[in-house]
Amino acid sequence: MKSIVHIITPIITEGIRSLDDVDPFLRADLEVRHSLIKNGPASIECAADEALSVPGILEEAIAAEQAGASAIIIDCMGDPGLEACREVVSIPVLGPAQTCMHYASMLGQKFAFITVLDQLKPMIDGLAARYGLMDNYAGFGAINVPVLDIEERIDDVIEQLFEASLHSITKSRAGAIILGCTGFFGCAEAIATRLEAAGYTVPVLDPIPLALHAADALVKTGLSHSGSIYHKPRRKALRGYSLQGFYDVANS
Amino acid sequence: MKSIVHIITPIITEGIRSLDDVDPFLRADLEVRHSLIKNGPASIECAADEALSVPGILEEAIAAEQAGASAIIIDCMGDPGLEACREVVSIPVLGPAQTCMHYASMLGQKFAFITVLDQLKPMIDGLAARYGLMDNYAGFGAINVPVLDIEERIDDVIEQLFEASLHSITKSRAGAIILGCTGFFGCAEAIATRLEAAGYTVPVLDPIPLALHAADALVKTGLSHSGSIYHKPRRKALRGYSLQGFYDVANS
Amino acid sequence: MKSIVHIITPIITEGIRSLDDVDPFLRADLEVRHSLIKNGPASIECAADEALSVPGILEEAIAAEQAGASAIIIDCMGDPGLEACREVVSIPVLGPAQTCMHYASMLGQKFAFITVLDQLKPMIDGLAARYGLMDNYAGFGAINVPVLDIEERIDDVIEQLFEASLHSITKSRAGAIILGCTGFFGCAEAIATRLEAAGYTVPVLDPIPLALHAADALVKTGLSHSGSIYHKPRRKALRGYSLQGFYDVANS
Amino acid sequence: MKSIVHIITPIITEGIRSLDDVDPFLRADLEVRHSLIKNGPASIECAADEALSVPGILEEAIAAEQAGASAIIIDCMGDPGLEACREVVSIPVLGPAQTCMHYASMLGQKFAFITVLDQLKPMIDGLAARYGLMDNYAGFGAINVPVLDIEERIDDVIEQLFEASLHSITKSRAGAIILGCTGFFGCAEAIATRLEAAGYTVPVLDPIPLALHAADALVKTGLSHSGSIYHKPRRKALRGYSLQGFYDVANS
Amino acid sequence: MKSIVHIITPIITEGIRSLDDVDPFLRADLEVRHSLIKNGPASIECAADEALSVPGILEEAIAAEQAGASAIIIDCMGDPGLEACREVVSIPVLGPAQTCMHYASMLGQKFAFITVLDQLKPMIDGLAARYGLMDNYAGFGAINVPVLDIEERIDDVIEQLFEASLHSITKSRAGAIILGCTGFFGCAEAIATRLEAAGYTVPVLDPIPLALHAADALVKTGLSHSGSIYHKPRRKALRGYSLQGFYDVANS
Amino acid sequence: MKSIVHIITPIITEGIRSLDDVDPFLRADLEVRHSLIKNGPASIECAADEALSVPGILEEAIAAEQAGASAIIIDCMGDPGLEACREVVSIPVLGPAQTCMHYASMLGQKFAFITVLDQLKPMIDGLAARYGLMDNYAGFGAINVPVLDIEERIDDVIEQLFEASLHSITKSRAGAIILGCTGFFGCAEAIATRLEAAGYTVPVLDPIPLALHAADALVKTGLSHSGSIYHKPRRKALRGYSLQGFYDVANS
Repeated sequence: MKSIVHIITPIITEGIRSLDDVDPFLRADLEVRHSLIKNGPASIECAADEALSVPGILEEAIAAEQAGASAIIIDCMGDPGLEACREVVSIPVLGPAQTCMHYASMLGQKFAFITVLDQLKPMIDGLAARYGLMDNYAGFGAINVPVLDIEERIDDVIEQLFEASLHSITKSRAGAIILGCTGFFGCAEAIATRLEAAGYTVPVLDPIPLALHAADALVKTGLSHSGSIYHKPRRKALRGYSLQGFYDVANS
Repeated sequence: MKSIVHIITPIITEGIRSLDDVDPFLRADLEVRHSLIKNGPASIECAADEALSVPGILEEAIAAEQAGASAIIIDCMGDPGLEACREVVSIPVLGPAQTCMHYASMLGQKFAFITVLDQLKPMIDGLAARYGLMDNYAGFGAINVPVLDIEERIDDVIEQLFEASLHSITKSRAGAIILGCTGFFGCAEAIATRLEAAGYTVPVLDPIPLALHAADALVKTGLSHSGSIYHKPRRKALRGYSLQGFYDVANS
Repeated sequence: MKSIVHIITPIITEGIRSLDDVDPFLRADLEVRHSLIKNGPASIECAADEALSVPGILEEAIAAEQAGASAIIIDCMGDPGLEACREVVSIPVLGPAQTCMHYASMLGQKFAFITVLDQLKPMIDGLAARYGLMDNYAGFGAINVPVLDIEERIDDVIEQLFEASLHSITKSRAGAIILGCTGFFGCAEAIATRLEAAGYTVPVLDPIPLALHAADALVKTGLSHSGSIYHKPRRKALRGYSLQGFYDVANS
Repeated sequence: MKSIVHIITPIITEGIRSLDDVDPFLRADLEVRHSLIKNGPASIECAADEALSVPGILEEAIAAEQAGASAIIIDCMGDPGLEACREVVSIPVLGPAQTCMHYASMLGQKFAFITVLDQLKPMIDGLAARYGLMDNYAGFGAINVPVLDIEERIDDVIEQLFEASLHSITKSRAGAIILGCTGFFGCAEAIATRLEAAGYTVPVLDPIPLALHAADALVKTGLSHSGSIYHKPRRKALRGYSLQGFYDVANS
Repeated sequence: MKSIVHIITPIITEGIRSLDDVDPFLRADLEVRHSLIKNGPASIECAADEALSVPGILEEAIAAEQAGASAIIIDCMGDPGLEACREVVSIPVLGPAQTCMHYASMLGQKFAFITVLDQLKPMIDGLAARYGLMDNYAGFGAINVPVLDIEERIDDVIEQLFEASLHSITKSRAGAIILGCTGFFGCAEAIATRLEAAGYTVPVLDPIPLALHAADALVKTGLSHSGSIYHKPRRKALRGYSLQGFYDVANS
Repeated sequence: MKSIVHIITPIITEGIRSLDDVDPFLRADLEVRHSLIKNGPASIECAADEALSVPGILEEAIAAEQAGASAIIIDCMGDPGLEACREVVSIPVLGPAQTCMHYASMLGQKFAFITVLDQLKPMIDGLAARYGLMDNYAGFGAINVPVLDIEERIDDVIEQLFEASLHSITKSRAGAIILGCTGFFGCAEAIATRLEAAGYTVPVLDPIPLALHAADALVKTGLSHSGSIYHKPRRKALRGYSLQGFYDVANS
């Protein structure tokens, strides 16, 4: 049985995520699809950005399931709309932050979450609390490079990620590192190598490849999220959005 | 100094909330304003409904502050959009669930949350976790009356609320009761009276009046939410919504 | 309906608290009364001092209720006698530490508690644990100025409070600051202004004004502490104290 | 080296505790002394009773240390004045509830606390929270026999204690039982025997004998409570109490 | 790249686990190997049984890695020797209980653990605490069928598992069910089907297939457990066991 | 009644522990016995070492009980085999880490654990979690002296232990210090004296003397671990070990 994993990148900006990114992680019976949202923000850096992305995510998720996907990944480390999405589709929906936090707990007991902006800490704290993982959350780190500068300053970014990781391992006793930003895709190996050279063989989790294989594992074992926790919306009027099959169009 | 508290009811259905509801709780230097959202669902009963209400809440919040409000209450016991709202306005934004959970903890150490639908429990659990109040959360109860039937079956509703409250007090050791649904407005006194008759002088918290006076207390003491936790969105393109002052219009 | 809030300062030293302090926070329908305790210590700086203040607090609380007060505030950041007081009166009794910890959690998720003596930390830790708020307790700070020197070294005190607050915000990720000493009354605005200048718009909670308006909110919404948690004492003999109405005089 | 353990019974009622009670637990190098408090309530059943007993406990504790005691036990399952007492003496001060909760955690992972009055639950919950033992606190049980009737209805009491214990073991998964009332002294063996007959070899902790030997263990290993947590009171005026050596007499 | 997952069944009894069990879950690039331990108990039902299985598990793990395995699963729901094993091999070692508890948390927020013997509860509680997942642990259930009778009473077993699962979902609010015994292999689908018929679409996790694909996900993403948490043993003498490469033989 | 406490040192290396060590802590009615394990590692420094010591500990524990011991202490700060041992004997079995963590919580609210190797932190974290004491666990410290060098560098060791203790008290707010290594036996007094000189009267717990007297307290009060938590192993075949009375010999 082939797994078809659909990645929803919850922004309107083209070109940040491409299917090339995940190519090295594919296998014979695993297909990946991808889409952006139609309405929403150019990037996600705060709770307001997140909120404005979720209606668009719901639309993409419903469409993906109808098109035959066997699982969905929401491509943002804030896991926006994870609960809401699970209410409108039956196939498994994965948040990369949730997936990484659980896998990192398995591999290293306590994890550090390293991302771009320092101000994201309350959001990440909130996710760890919501997922019941505060006891395994060793710490949060941020580098000082704007997202848009990541690509052209990639060496500097990797150096700073290495240093933030090392600090989390030695000072906060983290046993695993979660790379908390889309822009860090592909940096995991370089960081792990530097940590190894510094004497620390510590797993560095790259969210999208891991979420991809974790989703595949669910498909192969026939599991999805719980219907006793995520209930289908009761049919009602809705104005300003089009989520056919769940909501009726309200007059404006 | 007069406090102007703006209540945003985050649904498109008119007639459920009116200013008459809060009239008995006004005082000379406290004014209340009210609005519905323009786009969104007819009611809120799940995470998808919530997600579809938040963009509309953000619009109302920005407009309310511009119109001179001194505080905002989001009129829904799921506190939808609380964090996002606090990023786009400087005046205090209160969620009635958060306010009730904290006040109930003060008055009765542990609280029970009584609402209409049993399936809301994961959402309420999530709020208690997000607010750091799991240790004070004695339990959750639900009655078996559809929201739309509340008004015409009000005696039955009060009887069931009394019984769920009594059960929480005697079995789950709750010291305070939170009425967790807009439709229960005005029932608190009747329930408290029955509990008193049953031997339990226990506070029953009616969310909107309490949030109103808690907001007033913030205005009078010059306090608002934290700028170190809730950051203004960085300016960027946004498609499909109009939040002028924060986002630029993206081409579609 | 007028609220009458009675503030009990649980020491025998006159002149530290006056009604002038709270004048700026009054409103038409809010009256404040004040008393010291008759027996007890000159100041409260440890658990023994606290213990020696509580019998006197109970006497004042009973008298205040009999004199028509609608709520009571215990004017000490250790909230001495809060539970015991709630057993002997029916009107709401507020502890300023409990009130501030809950409001600060609402406004800033995690709070820091800044006070005079470093050795008070275990007592404040104990309060946060008792109130179920350990998850929201970001940290504790102390300045190095003796209480009796506060007034004459006020500029130095404000500077040190600002620095301790800034440290809590940047290092411990506090989202709100609680001023944990009677002597800091009136400093909140100056500290908030300096924090603002340093780039942090963070609420600084002045305990007595906040407790005053939180008490007023309870009176206006008809709420008090829970009779299922705080039970009236069963009548019995008591030697050495006079708490008529609750205890019989024992022979000595 | 002989241990001299002084038991302070924090009530004014004579005859409830006698040294005969602890005779079977003595050994060659262990001496027990005993005193009541001079001022305070006839019994302790609520927070107000507790508060009124603590000044008297402080007086007894200071006197006991001056008379050569090597450790002090506060003979009440609410551990009244434990922190305050530790500030005014250097010898170890033990609370029987604290001692039992820790020993029961060691022996049975999770403990149940069985006492007389149902209304004591918030007080016991508060102790477990203050001692950092909420995770090990399996449950609370109460029998329906007034304290004063215990002696004459002792068979009934033992039967009810057995049943409450059995319920805690089978339903709340308690691994150890704490007898939470002075009046239950001497019942532990009878309850353990019945539990054994019912198939459960579960430790039943009798607080005073255990606290006695735990205190002895501290004396023999030269340990006492921490001076970094419990600080000597700073000298100051005190009115209405006489705690010479720590406080100055204030004029009245 | 082919994944080779080695399953160690930590008992000496042949015939309980066969490779046929996992056949339906294989895929082109995933190979499974299997071995029993050489010394140890016939089955694992308590901590002593576990302790006696771990030296044998270490021997198998070292051998499996030397033989080219890319990951190891310890085939017992107590995860015996998980930490120790991770110290002696570099390839990922998975415990099925740890894997299920994390995946169940992802899919259903809170999980119930259903197994054979009621007395295993403290062991499972201990695992949940060790993995930092107490907040997600909704409850424990046990059926009343001896392990050796499972096969011949399979219909009865499924019925009882269904009932225990339903109870956990409706009473303990579990969102996912973990089948906590080797003997339940293959029952997941039947239970899920009955739950579906009863109105609950809830994931039922079969540990070995899930651990197999979770291990495969780690191999495909190049991750293993943390070297900062699991350190290689320092070389030293060992008597009575043969773990060459790590320990020297001590004279007896 | 005489207490006979049997200390099992769970390594094969003679000469590290002698009965002379505990001589100063004996009393008329307390006898101490001692044995090493027959098979196992030369020292314990990681989870694999621990695992290889437990079968030998079980053998010694059974033999000790048969020889008339009234309690057992496992002489290693990782408490290896504590649960398993309690399943095979009825007399109390104490782990020195568990005993110290509970006593330190009683004396100082929060404790620091100071040991030799930094890499032991995850193991100690695991114990604190398993014992439900994370809230009381202020911190972990390690000195930089190899175990085998302790004796000859004892002054340096004491100096470093003092410094690590002082750091825990002043920075991590520990109220009590646990000496976490067999090699530190006898250093407690010197460290406490230096802390006293530095202004901190803080208890420094020496594990073996404390465990000895805590075991004695259990014997004198007739208590042992819980049969509802620690169940006797069900009789079954066992290969490679000889635990007669519990297991049958399996053919090899």
